[in-house]
Amino acid sequence: MKPLRLNAFAMACVGHQAAGLWTRAEDRSADYRTLRHWTDLARLLERGGFDALFLADVLGTYDVHGGSRDAAVRAAAQVPVNDPLGAVSAMAAVTENLGFGLTVTTTYEQPYSLARRLTTLDHLTQGRVAWNVVTGYLDSAARNLGFTAQVAHDERYDVAEEYLEVCYKLWEGSWEDGAVVRDAARGVYADPAKVHDIAHHGRYFDVPGAFLCEPSPQRTPVVFQAGSSPRGQRFAARHAECVFVIAPTAAIARRSVDSLRREVAEAGRDPRSVQVYAGLTAVVRSSDAEARALLADYREHASREGALALFGGWTGVDLAGAAPGQVLQHVTTDANRSALRNFTDDPDREWTVEDLARFVAVGGRGPVLAGSPQTVANELEAFAQEADVDGFNLMYATMPGTFTDVVDHLVPELARRGRTAPPPAPGTTLRERLGTGDGPRLAATHTGAGFRRP
Amino acid sequence: MKPLRLNAFAMACVGHQAAGLWTRAEDRSADYRTLRHWTDLARLLERGGFDALFLADVLGTYDVHGGSRDAAVRAAAQVPVNDPLGAVSAMAAVTENLGFGLTVTTTYEQPYSLARRLTTLDHLTQGRVAWNVVTGYLDSAARNLGFTAQVAHDERYDVAEEYLEVCYKLWEGSWEDGAVVRDAARGVYADPAKVHDIAHHGRYFDVPGAFLCEPSPQRTPVVFQAGSSPRGQRFAARHAECVFVIAPTAAIARRSVDSLRREVAEAGRDPRSVQVYAGLTAVVRSSDAEARALLADYREHASREGALALFGGWTGVDLAGAAPGQVLQHVTTDANRSALRNFTDDPDREWTVEDLARFVAVGGRGPVLAGSPQTVANELEAFAQEADVDGFNLMYATMPGTFTDVVDHLVPELARRGRTAPPPAPGTTLRERLGTGDGPRLAATHTGAGFRRP
Repeated sequence: MKPLRLNAFAMACVGHQAAGLWTRAEDRSADYRTLRHWTDLARLLERGGFDALFLADVLGTYDVHGGSRDAAVRAAAQVPVNDPLGAVSAMAAVTENLGFGLTVTTTYEQPYSLARRLTTLDHLTQGRVAWNVVTGYLDSAARNLGFTAQVAHDERYDVAEEYLEVCYKLWEGSWEDGAVVRDAARGVYADPAKVHDIAHHGRYFDVPGAFLCEPSPQRTPVVFQAGSSPRGQRFAARHAECVFVIAPTAAIARRSVDSLRREVAEAGRDPRSVQVYAGLTAVVRSSDAEARALLADYREHASREGALALFGGWTGVDLAGAAPGQVLQHVTTDANRSALRNFTDDPDREWTVEDLARFVAVGGRGPVLAGSPQTVANELEAFAQEADVDGFNLMYATMPGTFTDVVDHLVPELARRGRTAPPPAPGTTLRERLGTGDGPRLAATHTGAGFRRP
Repeated sequence: MKPLRLNAFAMACVGHQAAGLWTRAEDRSADYRTLRHWTDLARLLERGGFDALFLADVLGTYDVHGGSRDAAVRAAAQVPVNDPLGAVSAMAAVTENLGFGLTVTTTYEQPYSLARRLTTLDHLTQGRVAWNVVTGYLDSAARNLGFTAQVAHDERYDVAEEYLEVCYKLWEGSWEDGAVVRDAARGVYADPAKVHDIAHHGRYFDVPGAFLCEPSPQRTPVVFQAGSSPRGQRFAARHAECVFVIAPTAAIARRSVDSLRREVAEAGRDPRSVQVYAGLTAVVRSSDAEARALLADYREHASREGALALFGGWTGVDLAGAAPGQVLQHVTTDANRSALRNFTDDPDREWTVEDLARFVAVGGRGPVLAGSPQTVANELEAFAQEADVDGFNLMYATMPGTFTDVVDHLVPELARRGRTAPPPAPGTTLRERLGTGDGPRLAATHTGAGFRRP
């Protein structure tokens, strides 16, 4: 039996996919500002055998709901939000194996400096960094970062393609293996004949020079991607080593996974070399009844306004004027209806605004499994098989309680079923752990490998 | 007697102001790629009572010498170079009081995202971050970051002025004190009425929105600056809380410090509220003879080529074609001669290229004091008095040996003389430690305080 892979999905903010649950006495997510918060979390996840902590990010606020960010600010719906890279080195210092999946957009910063930031962390973590490549989706971010509005969706991916090309040239093509010799007797640190200008002159970027950093253990960080649009999937097929899908049911996830694996094969890569993680929340208690009661309590305590603020940011649909009992299909336009399809397993079911808010408030766009370790393990196994995913990107309802329960109760149950992998040897890079490349480096069939020097 | 303040000056590269000394058996600077390197250094500096680790940075290579970067790459003269922010959270996790002075340019990144990166670290370090504001000086950086060449010097400062204005608005003016209420009973994390759009519409930047982060302990990080040009000093007078000067002698430093303090007073601030650190290297051994022999050995082992590569990058003067014995004044143009003035205490003295290379190779543009703890302490006290500086930005010849000797031998000697400060109480911010503001916040007379809401 293949192990079920686990990532933890979080963000440098108060709550993440759990609207308003920071108000619960046991929730510590408002401590996101402290180092201890992150080092404790990293230790917990390492103990649980997680592949990586996957950190989401936005550079704007959710300001569609009611036409302002006020609801998001009140509920702390992903605002305030800190930079996802800040705590990585502290977390790396207290762990040996945990990877760090870092969300950074290709839209607002030059590739030359971002490539160095990621390489620096790949050095410091000894090869445990993954880059979740995103293109941004919030107008509120674009407006503050030098644009009058967000660049159009498909063009953002064109920019991202060239952005990655620049990064691959820097990471794979600039410093040859063997360029760094550290020959003290001859006084030669690196051989300039093996350090190359990348001479990139493209439509969006000009980067004539050589990379600033010597090669890090993985060179190119493991590439994560989460785009679900056709353009996003084409992008993932060329670049992603791990893909994050989020869908309310395994059946809906399966459609996305099937089309992704088809695209990967068409891009000339082994479709099984891409690790797919489904996003979901697992509320694990000693009995099904207890877990379900806890989930009901979460939904009761959650912030409807915060949930609808998140929903507005994700979809562009403003439900602020709708009464809680109104049926969604009656208050939304045709154009908006497709957005709803991502949230509901049955688009023909009549959802009220209240239903939607309660659904989104815990676990965002993903399902919530609530039960005993046995029940949740059963459901995870069934979901993985039905959706054809390799593992799960686990969200939290409360921090760190949800993860603590998973580590202490669900992971042992998965281990009993032979669905966990042994911990990797110290010094194993994230790419080696995931098996997505040739050792610590990109697979020869990966797009980025094409930018190596012959 | 006022304590003599100490910062350590380093960089995420192999060697920094010591060309080629990475080749010595005892030098560990090539370990800059590891976390342990940085956490060990941070612990050492904290033990020595240093105010801060001041991390330099460049985003390009030194490619003036011989018209290429080859010499720099061979000697590892500030290339390869990692991002200075990467290791900060790991260092913060193993220290209580040490500050982190982080060099980041205002030329290549939008202020909205940089402000968040710095605030994130100010949160995680509990208020121990300083920002060394630079505008960049290498064409080789500009060309790779979206420019065809470096923006002209004075215009870079115009950009920096507006850049800081944007940052102050985000840091000081967007989230009011009291905006964050964390009222679990009412479900209100922050009061949207107290979170404000900054509505910045300037010549270089448009940032209409609110800051993404809640206020960190210092809000605005402590502002460091090192500009020595008239335009740079005018900038420092408005913004800097700490200034780094580098000059080959105390007398030359004094001229710079006098004009700086005049400018600070003219900007309506207390000229004594700005802490001035002079850059120098202290080679401390048990006897003068031993220290001087060690320095001579350093100069013998140093890389002339690496030194001239650094010199070329700093000044634009290419000495690759000049023979070692040639007299500088004979091989350089009038235009270049002023550059030499920054390197030599007596511009009329006949310096050969070899003299210059040996001078620059250890300690860059600053003096090197070599002697017993008593001798070096005497010289530091005399330098501080003559130059009217508050302390020193200590560079290293070898890593960590130079700093270890300072901490173990020089600092105790300074303590015996009453020239060290007691360690601050845990939780003290860097600004409180330095006394440059009103508690943890900017002084009311500081330019940035003008962007607070009334």
